[in-house]
Amino acid sequence: MPTTVSAYAAPSATEDLVPTTIERRDVGPDDVLIEIKYAGICHSDIHTVRGDWGPQQFPLAPGHEIAGIVTEVGANVTKHAVGDRVGVGCMVNSCRECKNCLAGEEQYCLNGNVGTYGAVDRDGTITQGGYSTQVVVTEDFVLRIPEGIELDAAAPLLCAGITTFSPLRHWGAGPGKKVAVVGLGGLGHMAVKLAHAMGAEVTVLSQSLKKQEDGLRLGADAYYATSDENTFTDLAGSFDLIINTVSASLDISAYLGLLSLDGALVNVGAPAEPLPVQAFALIGGRRSFAGSMIGGIRETQEMLDFCAEHKLGAEIEVIPADKINDAYERVLASDVRYRFVIDTSTL
Amino acid sequence: MPTTVSAYAAPSATEDLVPTTIERRDVGPDDVLIEIKYAGICHSDIHTVRGDWGPQQFPLAPGHEIAGIVTEVGANVTKHAVGDRVGVGCMVNSCRECKNCLAGEEQYCLNGNVGTYGAVDRDGTITQGGYSTQVVVTEDFVLRIPEGIELDAAAPLLCAGITTFSPLRHWGAGPGKKVAVVGLGGLGHMAVKLAHAMGAEVTVLSQSLKKQEDGLRLGADAYYATSDENTFTDLAGSFDLIINTVSASLDISAYLGLLSLDGALVNVGAPAEPLPVQAFALIGGRRSFAGSMIGGIRETQEMLDFCAEHKLGAEIEVIPADKINDAYERVLASDVRYRFVIDTSTL
Repeated sequence: MPTTVSAYAAPSATEDLVPTTIERRDVGPDDVLIEIKYAGICHSDIHTVRGDWGPQQFPLAPGHEIAGIVTEVGANVTKHAVGDRVGVGCMVNSCRECKNCLAGEEQYCLNGNVGTYGAVDRDGTITQGGYSTQVVVTEDFVLRIPEGIELDAAAPLLCAGITTFSPLRHWGAGPGKKVAVVGLGGLGHMAVKLAHAMGAEVTVLSQSLKKQEDGLRLGADAYYATSDENTFTDLAGSFDLIINTVSASLDISAYLGLLSLDGALVNVGAPAEPLPVQAFALIGGRRSFAGSMIGGIRETQEMLDFCAEHKLGAEIEVIPADKINDAYERVLASDVRYRFVIDTSTL
Repeated sequence: MPTTVSAYAAPSATEDLVPTTIERRDVGPDDVLIEIKYAGICHSDIHTVRGDWGPQQFPLAPGHEIAGIVTEVGANVTKHAVGDRVGVGCMVNSCRECKNCLAGEEQYCLNGNVGTYGAVDRDGTITQGGYSTQVVVTEDFVLRIPEGIELDAAAPLLCAGITTFSPLRHWGAGPGKKVAVVGLGGLGHMAVKLAHAMGAEVTVLSQSLKKQEDGLRLGADAYYATSDENTFTDLAGSFDLIINTVSASLDISAYLGLLSLDGALVNVGAPAEPLPVQAFALIGGRRSFAGSMIGGIRETQEMLDFCAEHKLGAEIEVIPADKINDAYERVLASDVRYRFVIDTSTL
């Protein structure tokens, strides 16, 4: 028998989210039932429920930055136990058979990973996200949240954290490396904290200097305004790695000019419009323009363990459920430092 | 006293090349005087003398695929001796002090490498290229051509060879790797030979199947026409590395779709127009769109040694100097298999 649980969901692409109930499947032999304590609000939640990325089946409860406590486990479950502090990120399943899944890169599942909400699960049902009080997830896609990180500050790590951790690791951020982070929002502020903790020299490239004080406090060594043309000449050829967290269209060729030999500019956001790239900007320094999407389950666990070790969490503003729609407007206006997290006890 | 030598040069951006003479500097203490035997015709020679890449100082003798014999060396020269078989590629000097030069990547010299023709040398003179009978080059930028490669087939290795060898090496072409080569021209045919010799599985992606027989003979394992839409579905997610030798604007996002996880599409040519790139095509498989330019001196020597070991040279059509202008038209019409090489004894 499926369980009915409280949730906040969008009735359609053009309406505000409203309190409602959703169904959760029975706890199967490999499943974990999680009592959700906190759910982060990711910019992509807004894009998805508003249909910016394609039509959705409604009502839809978004949320893929989930932190909570295990309340029940299936008969075969070995990785988690009742009472454990756990998290769920952007995916809740994958085929587990393809080359990429077998390599631990389930986010790039060749048969398509199953998104935490608005996706067709492997049993044919539509997944519902973390703006709710409980969720049932197969144990392999449930992460351990180590002691030392508060659950509320941990929630955004499941998307904003891993989305920036993964490319920082993949492209070798660490001592002796110069890393720039474009945009100081939900993703950007985590990129700064993580790159700094990895030992890299970190520069923030933001439209203005409004958040400079924050940026330096979070671990940046330098902070530049991209509205100032001099930034692009002063910093030419400076960085080994640039993590671009901005989903709006940027002048990619200008940012490529900031890379040193063999440098990479990595987009973690994806504007819908194609980005014009000057091939000379790549060829002139064997530079790369690349993209990266969340991380695999193993790497997500590594990220959580890394955050616990370095006592890192997201900078958050905890809100009750009835402020979700206001929070959406504030996210769209970049009026958040740096992540809204829903206290799901208010659902 | 500078020496006057025979050459073929463009009197202006709009005129055919004509027989003429140019000056070569005295052989300085670090210089090598080379009697040029063969000079390859590179597509970029045509772009440069016709002003496509910016204004030039005329008359200009192009040519940066030079093979010949040492006839004189300066007092300090230790790397080369009279009678040695040597080559000169796309650059004849660099600052030798910057980070990139010190790393052996002189092609990415931060102060600008000195092109073999049409560039301002470090003494302020304008360099003149290989369509001539002699050239004076500082010893560090002169390569040894090993026994086992004919000088005429060696000449194109100095540009077409290293331009493809370097990215193949840098991105790890070898056994177990699937490499695609876009375009089967001067650069493409070398990419096929080299990638095959490195042990990679090689696929040619060409507009049509016209050169299929050649492609397979040169070492390709498969050959597809990109004019056939099915190619892009059939080969989706197939390649670890794609070397794009085509300078015309391609649909980069479509080619990115042919890459497997962590794959790289590397442009070795640079269309003047910006190339539109869909960020989703990058993010969906942590793919990279990259660029690469010739190779450093050390790597160019490695390439020549590799070619000798594997008994590789370019496929060439040797022409006398009075066919240079005809050859230009044939290069522009893609009517060459696969490189014209000037017999400089006809100058």
